Amino acid sequence: MDTPNKIYLTEEEIPKQWYNIRADMKVKPAPLISPATHKPLTFEELTPVFCDELVRQELDDTTPYIDIPEEVLGFYKMYRPSPVMRAYRLEKELGTPAKIYYKFEGNNTSGSHKLNSAIAQAYYAKKQGLKGVTTETGAGQWGTALSMACAYVGLECKVFMVKCSYEQKIYRREVMRSYGANATSSPSTATKIGQKILAETPNTTGSLGCAISEAVEAAVTQEGYRYVLGSVLGQVLLHQSVIGLETKTALDKYGIKPDIIIGCTGGGSNFGGLIAPYVGEMLRGENFYRLIAVEPTSCPSFTRGKYKYDFCDTGMITPLAKMYTLGSHFIPSPNHAGGLRYHGMSSILSQLYADGVIEAVAVEQKPVFESATLFARAEGILPAPESAHAVHSAVLEALACKDSGEAKTIVFGLSGTGYFDMTAYETFNNGTMDDHVPTDEELAVGFAGIPDVPEDI
Amino acid sequence: MDTPNKIYLTEEEIPKQWYNIRADMKVKPAPLISPATHKPLTFEELTPVFCDELVRQELDDTTPYIDIPEEVLGFYKMYRPSPVMRAYRLEKELGTPAKIYYKFEGNNTSGSHKLNSAIAQAYYAKKQGLKGVTTETGAGQWGTALSMACAYVGLECKVFMVKCSYEQKIYRREVMRSYGANATSSPSTATKIGQKILAETPNTTGSLGCAISEAVEAAVTQEGYRYVLGSVLGQVLLHQSVIGLETKTALDKYGIKPDIIIGCTGGGSNFGGLIAPYVGEMLRGENFYRLIAVEPTSCPSFTRGKYKYDFCDTGMITPLAKMYTLGSHFIPSPNHAGGLRYHGMSSILSQLYADGVIEAVAVEQKPVFESATLFARAEGILPAPESAHAVHSAVLEALACKDSGEAKTIVFGLSGTGYFDMTAYETFNNGTMDDHVPTDEELAVGFAGIPDVPEDI
Repeated sequence: MDTPNKIYLTEEEIPKQWYNIRADMKVKPAPLISPATHKPLTFEELTPVFCDELVRQELDDTTPYIDIPEEVLGFYKMYRPSPVMRAYRLEKELGTPAKIYYKFEGNNTSGSHKLNSAIAQAYYAKKQGLKGVTTETGAGQWGTALSMACAYVGLECKVFMVKCSYEQKIYRREVMRSYGANATSSPSTATKIGQKILAETPNTTGSLGCAISEAVEAAVTQEGYRYVLGSVLGQVLLHQSVIGLETKTALDKYGIKPDIIIGCTGGGSNFGGLIAPYVGEMLRGENFYRLIAVEPTSCPSFTRGKYKYDFCDTGMITPLAKMYTLGSHFIPSPNHAGGLRYHGMSSILSQLYADGVIEAVAVEQKPVFESATLFARAEGILPAPESAHAVHSAVLEALACKDSGEAKTIVFGLSGTGYFDMTAYETFNNGTMDDHVPTDEELAVGFAGIPDVPEDI
Repeated sequence: MDTPNKIYLTEEEIPKQWYNIRADMKVKPAPLISPATHKPLTFEELTPVFCDELVRQELDDTTPYIDIPEEVLGFYKMYRPSPVMRAYRLEKELGTPAKIYYKFEGNNTSGSHKLNSAIAQAYYAKKQGLKGVTTETGAGQWGTALSMACAYVGLECKVFMVKCSYEQKIYRREVMRSYGANATSSPSTATKIGQKILAETPNTTGSLGCAISEAVEAAVTQEGYRYVLGSVLGQVLLHQSVIGLETKTALDKYGIKPDIIIGCTGGGSNFGGLIAPYVGEMLRGENFYRLIAVEPTSCPSFTRGKYKYDFCDTGMITPLAKMYTLGSHFIPSPNHAGGLRYHGMSSILSQLYADGVIEAVAVEQKPVFESATLFARAEGILPAPESAHAVHSAVLEALACKDSGEAKTIVFGLSGTGYFDMTAYETFNNGTMDDHVPTDEELAVGFAGIPDVPEDI
């Protein structure tokens, strides 16, 4: 049967439960530990920072399926199910025998998949009777998504936005303001850690790690506030599993089994969500897929990082997470994929990578934008710079199929649109885009900041 | 049966034919006439400016259904069918017994309904063996859409963009460039008419009428080029009927009969497309609907204009069209709904308005943005400033239902998203948004420029 251009599920087919990858992992991801005692953090230790229910989800590595609350499902129905698209025109343009599909998460005002976890986190915060939440945002996708979710449930929202994004992406800032959120350029003078970082490096372009420090400080020092995070954590990958579950339901309807599944990775929420049910099958020994995480060469946590316990933030006030990391002090060059500039990687994906379940590749910015433009002209959707990394990797795999004559089925995650990232496209259109691949010496500076934690923790 | 949040049709349910309102009009819209002879323009006279097939469609006021070419249908399948959404959350927020639906045309990179006609026009131009097309754009929606369509069929694209939009909307400009189009601020020095207008009014913020003059001049003075237009013309309303046809198919599935249908009007393509099958039923005496065109008070062609033959452009080089007009020299205040700043109105809609088939209202900019923000927070989609006029009118009608206790069914056209219009939202968020309602004296200046054409033409 010929697949349509867009496979849409009905609203009734939106999954009623999220899937928790950890339940099927034989080697569980390492737990968050205290920087002081090196002991796993308990519910009581985590709840001053995070909402109670989200801590429960964070600590749960055994329950495979967790019910999606009715209210969250109601919100999902505003913009979900999202379509699985067949890239017929891109295939033709590339002249490849490969069949290319993409799960498109950009059809909402936040323009990305981030809304899937934002509404869940805002819902639990509201249910707990909190007054507001704080967070950080890199590209602005998470901040926008959280603003929308908070406006919906009626919660205050304070967003620390990485300085280079804050300055590049004024449109994103205004979307957040339109949804009633408060957006601050990070590092800022609003927090002690921000003041300290500004004193030490007044010309910094900021980083996600630094913005996290500020958001956590702002949460724990204000009554009725908690901190929420848009990626990296197990709870976020849990919520984002809705992407993969929908993808699998849609493809299964047409009897389509992917050979290769590709997603871009910053903290890992998009890729982790997309592959969720497929990696579950692999972990249970039922099936095999090539699962490829794509990161920028400017911030190569998987491909050049160390698998170590490290701080999640620059200010070193968060718990330690075991992950592929470039060191919490590593500041990548100010490239245009703001969402992929995080120094570390989801503990779940890190363990899967260490175990050889998933692969990773790093790609450079300019060819990424070449593929983005090719894709936009063929398929009519202008990708986010982050998502364009997955587009580029899919193009390379499709061209490899052209060389080998294999008609592989490639599925990638188009996690968002680039409508708020036109400054990046302007640089590309003007021919002035460059990239900086860190030298071994530059990486060594970041690695030196990784704390010394015994291997047997 | 409860309607879902989103009614999606299958790709097979995309209409195979466009509907031509004119075929069912007893009083046909007045034909385009020559400014010199006051005689209706012939195929031979129009084809130096427009593509042959589009001229045929422009002159055809008798054929009710016209086949959509296979290639155009193929392109439609990239982003159509577009959903009809039930505004459950907005209804709740307003506390209205009314049922509110909206047809959402913003799920594509151009961010609006304009793509529906852009691909048709680009297809016919390419089929005729042309080298390129020229056009004007106000808000930038049409220019973006045409760029996408031209990139797809392989046609050069030159866009004259109204100066105030060109300066406000740099992101739109970069989308056009990403799709390979050439965008010029209008008035420009690239044309004789642009040079003349700049000499006379060097500080002008531009107007659609002026940009049209430039685009037409650029088309007729270049080999292998034709001019294309994103609104006003009969051919454009024909292509846009796909909006209304899909809307009706979707609503009919659930047995939903609208009481009121609302759309914003600049040149009339969105509203004319949305109401097409419904106005057809009215013209054939089969049904009755309240059909409401919404325009800005700053550019009130329906509500304060004169129904006269007038030039379609400021430079007075186009044919004369009979329409509700403020005069081709009228320059509205630089408000943020760039797409609604045209001095005239579709001849089809003008005749329907003169005959009392459709209604019109004018609304002010600030309450429009208040409704836009309310809608964005409730429904998760940030509307284009143009579309926000329809949102506002729908909100007012829903509040009237609350007062009267009537559970009317209101359908409005959400013609596009505001993602590229965040400068407008920034002004609103900063509390510095104002509006200018033209005085009778200001309108009189525009009316004085309307040519003297005998009534019996």
